[in-house]
Amino acid sequence: MRRALPPLRALLGAARPPRLPAPRGMCGPLAGRSGHSALRGLPSFGFLFDIDGVLVRGRTPIPAARAAFRKLVNPQGQFLVPVVFVTNAGDCLCQKKAEQLSHLLGVPISQDQVMMSHSPLRMFKRYHEKCVLVSGQGPLLDIAQDLGFCQPITIDTLREKRPLLDAVDHDRRPNVLSPSAVELPKIEAVVLFGEPVRWETSLQLIIDVLLTSGYPGNPYGQESYRHIPVLACNMDLMWVAEAQSPRFGHGTFMVCLENIYKKITGKDLKYEALMGKPSRLTYQYAEHLIRAQALQRSWEQPIQTLYAVGDNVMTDVYGANLYNRYLQESSGSGPRAPLPAQAAAGTAPARRAQPQQPGPGWESELAAAAAARCSSVLVCTGVYDPHSEVALPGRDSTAENVFHGHRDFGFDPALVEPDHIVPDVDAAVDLVFRLENFAPP
Amino acid sequence: MRRALPPLRALLGAARPPRLPAPRGMCGPLAGRSGHSALRGLPSFGFLFDIDGVLVRGRTPIPAARAAFRKLVNPQGQFLVPVVFVTNAGDCLCQKKAEQLSHLLGVPISQDQVMMSHSPLRMFKRYHEKCVLVSGQGPLLDIAQDLGFCQPITIDTLREKRPLLDAVDHDRRPNVLSPSAVELPKIEAVVLFGEPVRWETSLQLIIDVLLTSGYPGNPYGQESYRHIPVLACNMDLMWVAEAQSPRFGHGTFMVCLENIYKKITGKDLKYEALMGKPSRLTYQYAEHLIRAQALQRSWEQPIQTLYAVGDNVMTDVYGANLYNRYLQESSGSGPRAPLPAQAAAGTAPARRAQPQQPGPGWESELAAAAAARCSSVLVCTGVYDPHSEVALPGRDSTAENVFHGHRDFGFDPALVEPDHIVPDVDAAVDLVFRLENFAPP
Repeated sequence: MRRALPPLRALLGAARPPRLPAPRGMCGPLAGRSGHSALRGLPSFGFLFDIDGVLVRGRTPIPAARAAFRKLVNPQGQFLVPVVFVTNAGDCLCQKKAEQLSHLLGVPISQDQVMMSHSPLRMFKRYHEKCVLVSGQGPLLDIAQDLGFCQPITIDTLREKRPLLDAVDHDRRPNVLSPSAVELPKIEAVVLFGEPVRWETSLQLIIDVLLTSGYPGNPYGQESYRHIPVLACNMDLMWVAEAQSPRFGHGTFMVCLENIYKKITGKDLKYEALMGKPSRLTYQYAEHLIRAQALQRSWEQPIQTLYAVGDNVMTDVYGANLYNRYLQESSGSGPRAPLPAQAAAGTAPARRAQPQQPGPGWESELAAAAAARCSSVLVCTGVYDPHSEVALPGRDSTAENVFHGHRDFGFDPALVEPDHIVPDVDAAVDLVFRLENFAPP
Repeated sequence: MRRALPPLRALLGAARPPRLPAPRGMCGPLAGRSGHSALRGLPSFGFLFDIDGVLVRGRTPIPAARAAFRKLVNPQGQFLVPVVFVTNAGDCLCQKKAEQLSHLLGVPISQDQVMMSHSPLRMFKRYHEKCVLVSGQGPLLDIAQDLGFCQPITIDTLREKRPLLDAVDHDRRPNVLSPSAVELPKIEAVVLFGEPVRWETSLQLIIDVLLTSGYPGNPYGQESYRHIPVLACNMDLMWVAEAQSPRFGHGTFMVCLENIYKKITGKDLKYEALMGKPSRLTYQYAEHLIRAQALQRSWEQPIQTLYAVGDNVMTDVYGANLYNRYLQESSGSGPRAPLPAQAAAGTAPARRAQPQQPGPGWESELAAAAAARCSSVLVCTGVYDPHSEVALPGRDSTAENVFHGHRDFGFDPALVEPDHIVPDVDAAVDLVFRLENFAPP
């Protein structure tokens, strides 16, 4: 089981700790802000729960999780408030993850409550009918088809169809030097689901697709600098496994791809969209799911506040705060404009990706997503360890240049400050109920 | 068979063609400079021959090669002038390459005449007794031991000893979460012979070794920014195989390693030495071999001029010109100082690597290496195509930022201008004999 990366400082002794509020004594900026819920017993808020480090550690359930979820459902097992599980994992179908969670938490979880890093791809309908190259591990074709893609092609299939391209491994080079050409449709987009195996093969073939405008096997073209769209899920540079130091994640693969592209062409690889925490697109989609639940349950009170509960400062806290900043900036400008797809990208203007609109249907589906705020709640059961923060030795002034977020996201100290810190997910639920004056009906 | 990369412009339409002299009518700057040879029948010059694109194309011999070598030997098959073969390949032993060349050229070639990208490692004696991690393909352990390394350890062996480290491939993760620790000596250097397979594994394990000061499996340390020495052979970014576009070479793997290291630590990966054309270290070592031949044959006349014959502007021409520049700068300063090992690096001062001295023995062995000049001779039988140069469409002013050489080598238009251009290697030999007024005894 994958856990997300510990905070940068814990790993590398980077400078500038976030200015954290005291870890107990809940008095964050949102305390007591809304108080309507108790009056009518209807929620005006929803939960976004991270999974690894909040509900499980590796393969072990965290005891507080079951206690928390007993408070979140009625005796019939129905949720009392909208709940979405938001994970950066992406190597299985949502249905499977929902079944795992149901078993783990002892309450029925539907697949509509589970959001993986690739889930927003469901909205990119303009690519669903086209031939797209998919990269990653696990049941890739099943996942792609479940998201709506009709013509996904894997790296392995492309390799079989164009055997001359993959030449790094001496033992896998073809014996025939001029294999017959096999018909292939134009590849019109590249979808990076997660880190693949045999990086040399995936990197070579993806670069080939980009430099040939979707016709790998052709010579590289001068005109192919405006490459076909790349959509990427899960930017985590590293993650914590059983080893004593963090392991390469999909973000590391993306570092390789970006830098090879840059070295060969002299230009930046551009992403049409970046998905998974901390991207804004992920939070938009999560809010969309939250609202769908409220609608389904006929909870008529608007959902005003999203509480994002996670264990990772760089993904859960950064992402929630980034989305909150977006909500704040968007409010007060009259009726909310349709959300631009560049919400997929980060906050550093100079380096921000400029993705295009994801396609018809997206804006109208998400136009109603309009919470007033998103609050970050950090738990101490995962990679965040309040004690190791204190114990850190003297700061290295150069280390503040080290940022493990994605290239297109700027480092901003304000974004890694959680609104609240609690011991565990059970305490997070208690806190939110108290802040919202929420009492189950 | 590997061929080197075509010139950048031919691939990507980069701007600024080298200001080439006319491809015939040999009147380069060195024409007729020395003329003693004919007087005594002894050579005051030597040849450095590239192999791929000069003597063979893929698996096919180039006809001019046999003609050229008939002129270079006496009826007993002895060479009339010192000759070294200098290739960036590195996936076999010099002995094997010498046998291939003997068969190809019809004259006996000794392994002392063959120089591969890793050959200068023989001089780095300070690492020979130490445990070094080796990365690449082919008979790595044989190559390492032939070069003098007593304790090489491969990536695969390290992976077996530390099974928790290689976690990218879901199917290769260990079933046991806490394997027993196996004794491993401290790894004291990393030697990158060439591009490996399963890049995710090699990249992860090399990064682990660098960030743990040679104790992979330990947690990453704050103090490990001054990483253990890295020695790299063959920096070719890409090479030309049967596919219509160039394929990833070791230089592409190094781009990944450098950028992952930079992303994680915020610091530049530093090379103790960079070997293979166009590095100066390679030419120094080639001159060393040339002089050893002259000494063995009791040719008492000093070797004044090296003629480097190759087909690749970015490696053969750049490398020869870079070495010539070094020889020019070094002359006139009285007795030549021992060669600094930073000769391994390039010419751009701002980005130049700062390798240390390679160890005792190096200076004294090479102190006698002191040619007056190195002349670049470009042939048209390989990746350089004089016609495609002319046929190039309008220049793209931004493309001059694209440089396919290694990070530590700056682009300098003067370094890609060959002293001479000839049709093939036979014409190259004719040219040099004429320039040197050389007539076999």
